[in-house]
This record gives sequence, C-alpha cells and structure tokens, in this order.
Amino acid sequence: MKTTTVFTIGRQFGSGGRSVGRRLAEKLEIPFYDRELIALAAKESGLSETLFENADEKATSSLFYSMVMGTYPLGGGAIAGRSEMPLNDQLFLIQSKTIHALAEKGSCVIVGRCADYVLRDLPNVLNIFIHARMPERIKRAIENYGEDEKKAESVCIKKDKQRANFYNYYSDRKWDQSETYDLTLDSGVLGLEGSVDLIIAYDEMFRKTEGKKRMVST
Amino acid sequence: MKTTTVFTIGRQFGSGGRSVGRRLAEKLEIPFYDRELIALAAKESGLSETLFENADEKATSSLFYSMVMGTYPLGGGAIAGRSEMPLNDQLFLIQSKTIHALAEKGSCVIVGRCADYVLRDLPNVLNIFIHARMPERIKRAIENYGEDEKKAESVCIKKDKQRANFYNYYSDRKWDQSETYDLTLDSGVLGLEGSVDLIIAYDEMFRKTEGKKRMVST
Repeated sequence: MKTTTVFTIGRQFGSGGRSVGRRLAEKLEIPFYDRELIALAAKESGLSETLFENADEKATSSLFYSMVMGTYPLGGGAIAGRSEMPLNDQLFLIQSKTIHALAEKGSCVIVGRCADYVLRDLPNVLNIFIHARMPERIKRAIENYGEDEKKAESVCIKKDKQRANFYNYYSDRKWDQSETYDLTLDSGVLGLEGSVDLIIAYDEMFRKTEGKKRMVST
Repeated sequence: MKTTTVFTIGRQFGSGGRSVGRRLAEKLEIPFYDRELIALAAKESGLSETLFENADEKATSSLFYSMVMGTYPLGGGAIAGRSEMPLNDQLFLIQSKTIHALAEKGSCVIVGRCADYVLRDLPNVLNIFIHARMPERIKRAIENYGEDEKKAESVCIKKDKQRANFYNYYSDRKWDQSETYDLTLDSGVLGLEGSVDLIIAYDEMFRKTEGKKRMVST
C-alpha cells in the first residue's frame, strides 16, 4: 500500500499534457513542477536562471560542447570537479538532484525534464505520456501559445524533435514509445478533464498494489 | 453517448495482452476474437485455414511475392480480380472485411491483426496496446508458451519484430508508438486483472463522450 505518488508527465507539444498535469495536481492538492523546477534548481546551484532556461530540455550539441570546453564563462569553475563536462550536462545533473529532492518530499506532479528516468528507482512513481492528434495540437498551438497558423504544425514537430533529442540523450529509453511509460493517453479521447479523472482512477488502483514490477531493470 | 465499444488490443509478445483482452471480453460478456478470427475469415472466403495461419500477422515478403506472382496454386484464381496481388495482401483484405463485419455486430474485443487501423473510421473503437518489462515477458514466454529459457528473450524480440513489420506494412502508423493508440499500458504495474479493470473504467468514461476526436485524420 502506497501513501504517496509522484506523477511524471511526458507530453507532445500542443497535446494539453501540461494542462492535464496542472489540473491533476490541483485536484489532488499536491505540488506541480514545470518551469518552476528550473527556478528551484537555479536557486540551489547559485547559477543564473537564464542559463537553465537556455538549456531547458535541450541536449548537449557538439558545437555547444566545444564552446563550453573552451572559454565559456562558468563563473570561475562554479561547479567544482565537473568543469570537464558540457554545461547542459552539468545543468541536467543539478536539475536531476532537485527532482529527486522534490520526489522525496511526497506526492507531486513533474512535467518533462526526463523525470521518469531520473526517478526510475523509486517504487511510487507513475510515468505518464500525453499525446493528441495533429489537428488538435495545431489548434492548441495557435490558441494557447500564439503560434502562427501556417507555422503551427512545423512548430509542433520541431518542439517534439527537441524533446525527443533531450530525452533520448539523457536516458536509455525512447521518448514517445509506449514501453517507456506506465500509461500513455490520447488526450482527445476523453478530453483534458476526463484524462485527469482516468489518471486519478489509475493512481487509486496503483496505490493498492505491492511494489512496482516496472522497477525490474532491463 | 455510445452503447457499444469495439476494443482493439495490440500487444508485445509475452506482455499478457492476449489474456487482458480475453478477460476483458469475459467480464463485459462480449465476444473475443484472436485466432478465431482466422477461422472465420477462412470460412467466409472458402480458402484453407492453413493459408491464413501461415500468413497470420506476417507482411508480404518480396520472395513470397514473386513466388505468388509465379505459379502459386491459388485454386485457379480463387479471388477473382485480385490475382495480381501477393497472397498475404489478399488474405489481409479478406481478414479486414471479417473484422469490419464483426465490429458492426456490436461490442467485442479483437486482438492484433491491425484491427485498430482497419476500423479507423468507426467512432466507437478504443485502441489499446499492452506491453511489459522484459523479465516478465521472458517468464511468461517460458511458462505459458513453453519457450526455452535461454532463447525466450530472443523469441520475444523476434515475435515483436514480426508484429511490427506486419503492422507497419499494412498501416500508415507505427506499432508500439504511443500516438498510434488511445491508451497504452504496462501490464506489470496493475497486473493483468487490474489492467482489465482500468480499461473498463476507461470505457465507461469513453461512452459518455460525444463522437471521437481521434477520428480526425492526420
């Protein structure tokens, strides 16, 4: 019997996954972490928030790598003993530490940032992925994110590629593949509110189980 | 408000997906179609059941294609007007027709055979995919299918490749990718019985929705 659940939410751009996560947190009255996570990580490390924002859900590129390996101003070797690592990797490590600390505090919802992989050894984590059909994603990209009508589809595709690159770089799993997650959902079938309710039903059943079989490493 | 639901179940080999489908059908007291489907298709076409079994969930290979294009004994052009098609493609068309006929009769569970793609235009279909961690799949392959302990993992991988080839060949989607389905589930998290209960809860919510947004073609 589990008393807390950490929900990690992966999502396609424009799928409404972030809204599902936020609503889930509201309904269960537990903390919700998305960009807020970045601010927290920044605060703990003493590094600038802008650095984290620029690196947010981006994998290390070789160009960036060489730049960092050269003379990138890290505040005089801000992170002792890690100066040989690319900046994005250092930021990822700091962020992972923050994610672990948050997960240990109790139930919460964490969106993106490889949180499912970071927390792979915890028994009370439910890994969820939200996707939707392209027409709905385009609509959401235009209405919620102010994307240009003609460019909205390519923005969705580009953002997804970026997220996939980030995820696949920092984990040994594949973003968007069903077996990476405990549950994946098309948010268009039940709508956002219905999707939240299904996840709550799932959690109620999950809490009654012993341990978590997915913990077995492959 | 929907009064019937057709459940299509895709599944990794050894994931317990077939059992989930069978149990779901039992609990809801609706028909279950798996290999039985083949027998039905065979019966309707007048072709031998062995032909269907050999082609079951296998895509057309070019070797097979040329063989069929040559002198393969199709009973004197058994399927009029289609003799220029590879045999597996002809069998797929006949099977698809059977799947459509079954779906129109009312609620049922159909395992594999690209049924989700075949029924893509129906509004009352829930497309589900079941997967599991490799250690559980190996265990199931040994205990339920009598696979050799040393070979069980490679059998799982090979069977999945075959299913993926079949699915990707006959549809414009990708097998095992989350966005191909309405819901995907790791059967190890809730167990087989729990997975069935979650799908039933999902269906109850689905029936209350209007239409199906996933119907929008992309």
